[in-house]
Amino acid sequence: MTMLVPSPVRIIGTGLIGGSLGMALTRSGVDVQLEDVSPGTAALAVELGAGSLPGQDAPAPELVLIAAPPDVAAALVDRALRTWPKALVADVASVKTTVLEGLRGIARAEDLPRYIGAHPMAGREISGVIAARADLFLGRPFVVVPHGSTDPRAVSTLRGLATEIGSVPTVMDADAHDIAVAHVSHVPQVMASLLAATLLEPSEPALGLAGQGLRDTTRIADSDPRLWVEILGANAGAVHQVLNGIRRHVDDVMEALATLQGDPDPGTGSRRALAELIAAGNRGVRRIPGKHGGATDAFATVVVLVPDRPGELARLLTEIGQIGVNLEDLRLEHELGRAVGLAHIAIDAAREDLLTRELAERGWRVADA
Amino acid sequence: MTMLVPSPVRIIGTGLIGGSLGMALTRSGVDVQLEDVSPGTAALAVELGAGSLPGQDAPAPELVLIAAPPDVAAALVDRALRTWPKALVADVASVKTTVLEGLRGIARAEDLPRYIGAHPMAGREISGVIAARADLFLGRPFVVVPHGSTDPRAVSTLRGLATEIGSVPTVMDADAHDIAVAHVSHVPQVMASLLAATLLEPSEPALGLAGQGLRDTTRIADSDPRLWVEILGANAGAVHQVLNGIRRHVDDVMEALATLQGDPDPGTGSRRALAELIAAGNRGVRRIPGKHGGATDAFATVVVLVPDRPGELARLLTEIGQIGVNLEDLRLEHELGRAVGLAHIAIDAAREDLLTRELAERGWRVADA
Repeated sequence: MTMLVPSPVRIIGTGLIGGSLGMALTRSGVDVQLEDVSPGTAALAVELGAGSLPGQDAPAPELVLIAAPPDVAAALVDRALRTWPKALVADVASVKTTVLEGLRGIARAEDLPRYIGAHPMAGREISGVIAARADLFLGRPFVVVPHGSTDPRAVSTLRGLATEIGSVPTVMDADAHDIAVAHVSHVPQVMASLLAATLLEPSEPALGLAGQGLRDTTRIADSDPRLWVEILGANAGAVHQVLNGIRRHVDDVMEALATLQGDPDPGTGSRRALAELIAAGNRGVRRIPGKHGGATDAFATVVVLVPDRPGELARLLTEIGQIGVNLEDLRLEHELGRAVGLAHIAIDAAREDLLTRELAERGWRVADA
Repeated sequence: MTMLVPSPVRIIGTGLIGGSLGMALTRSGVDVQLEDVSPGTAALAVELGAGSLPGQDAPAPELVLIAAPPDVAAALVDRALRTWPKALVADVASVKTTVLEGLRGIARAEDLPRYIGAHPMAGREISGVIAARADLFLGRPFVVVPHGSTDPRAVSTLRGLATEIGSVPTVMDADAHDIAVAHVSHVPQVMASLLAATLLEPSEPALGLAGQGLRDTTRIADSDPRLWVEILGANAGAVHQVLNGIRRHVDDVMEALATLQGDPDPGTGSRRALAELIAAGNRGVRRIPGKHGGATDAFATVVVLVPDRPGELARLLTEIGQIGVNLEDLRLEHELGRAVGLAHIAIDAAREDLLTRELAERGWRVADA
């Protein structure tokens, strides 16, 4: 039984996020009460181990988690604040400002200190309670989002909950949260979709020229339109702001390209505009934290040729283990019709020379990437 | 000794592409003559096994490959056509229309049938002859680009060369090639750079919320500005054309977001614009061919939890081999501070149930992705 989370906890909305929270808290010994607009969904969540259905005489919850879409979250938070006048109430929607503003429009002022926003950052390609898992939040960021009058005890309760389910709590206000997720999640989704949408134009032979770069940049474009309309709509201001900066850059790039198209040698201004964009991208991508929160510069990538047969990759990884080097990340690259793969092995940069030398001595073909 | 490639072949420009072509052709028994504006670079290419330096009495080449940047390729092709009046001459620059147009402005009409464009599609994060490898083109597309008066024998010679070095030849005209690479390579680069450049704005805590989606969409933003200025400048028209379509979509998205920001419930038009973009992205990304040229639909992804210790991934892959399932692709996912990884294993969709069941029976934790 955990001391970090009060009990009972009531979870309203038992989809992917609500269901996973229920499983994780149940595993920690918390008494979890489940509620959903769909009785069938709630029953399935119970069956999957996310908690139980509270009876008429169930004790009042100490903490209520609203796991519903942003457009209905405020109303559900308000209802919970009124129903359980001593409970803390948090919503876990993926945008925070619209929920807070909506709530301020309907809630009683004296109830607001018991409200706090939260955003456990986890998502999967599939949704619904079927996809829920107790470890969904393991190692992921969990943003705790107090507002001006939030009771400090709500912050520590949410931090405790985040820690209990294995995630990494971070405290931000609603505006900071929304612009942050616009940057790291919502705008990348829009850009991937914009790029992928252009792939409706090329011929099949043209698409046959696609390589890993196109695959990586468009992977997340295979996302649920309904879900993303809700998210983008609820964070419209922040996404608009970041896209506005991108549009200005697009205009600069297009102007430079138009100039270069008309005159391949128009002086240095147009080329400089392109070089500055690519260089800014270099600096931007290097700011993304690596696996354990360190800068990506701390890792080196060793590329090894792997015959496309069962067992070869396992043999490579076994030998890397024997050499005593730990994998930080691994990507296997296959190309059209190719009978070999390239394993891109990210390791501690300090061990790069050792690993390259040892693998080469063992007969592996190592590239100079 | 290959029958597919005439000999000797002279390679002018011994960087990554020229050096790799030299290594691959030398390995096939072709007599490769190397030439570079930098004698030191040429000498290094010889040392690395890319060919030899031709003496004064060296036989005239049957085929000349110009492996130089687009802005100087036309002049070098013209010089080669005049120097060796019986040789076929091909350039391997990554854009084709500007080279062809440049050549038409300077070459003698009677020389043009001996010219053909080519684009062996391979690139690495690092450049120069140091990064060259004989297998650089293995399994990769090799675009053969004849123009209106190209001698048909040049097409078959280049097809033979492509096959000899293990790549997959495709024939396209220069315009089709340039728009194709704008779609699959140049515009993805611009979009990744545009997105990565926005990452100069967020705070460090905000970037701490980054997940795999942001990493994938921005990976190629870590590219050489000088190289990309040349490529984008030489393909300015096609890149401009594709970006123009994207800009119109950006405007639509921004208008929809501005409307939703002012009025969260403005009727269905704004939401429909967002949903249509995401749905178009869904359809676009599904057009990208998979590993062996098949549709990506043919593969399923099984996600397995892997403890972050040396040997665990090797054990998993060994057991997958024992189950008799071949990996089509593999990606290891690590999250901030997380002590476990997720192995995303792409396999033949028909074997998904088998693998999921067998791994679960062996005690692995398999997700429902």
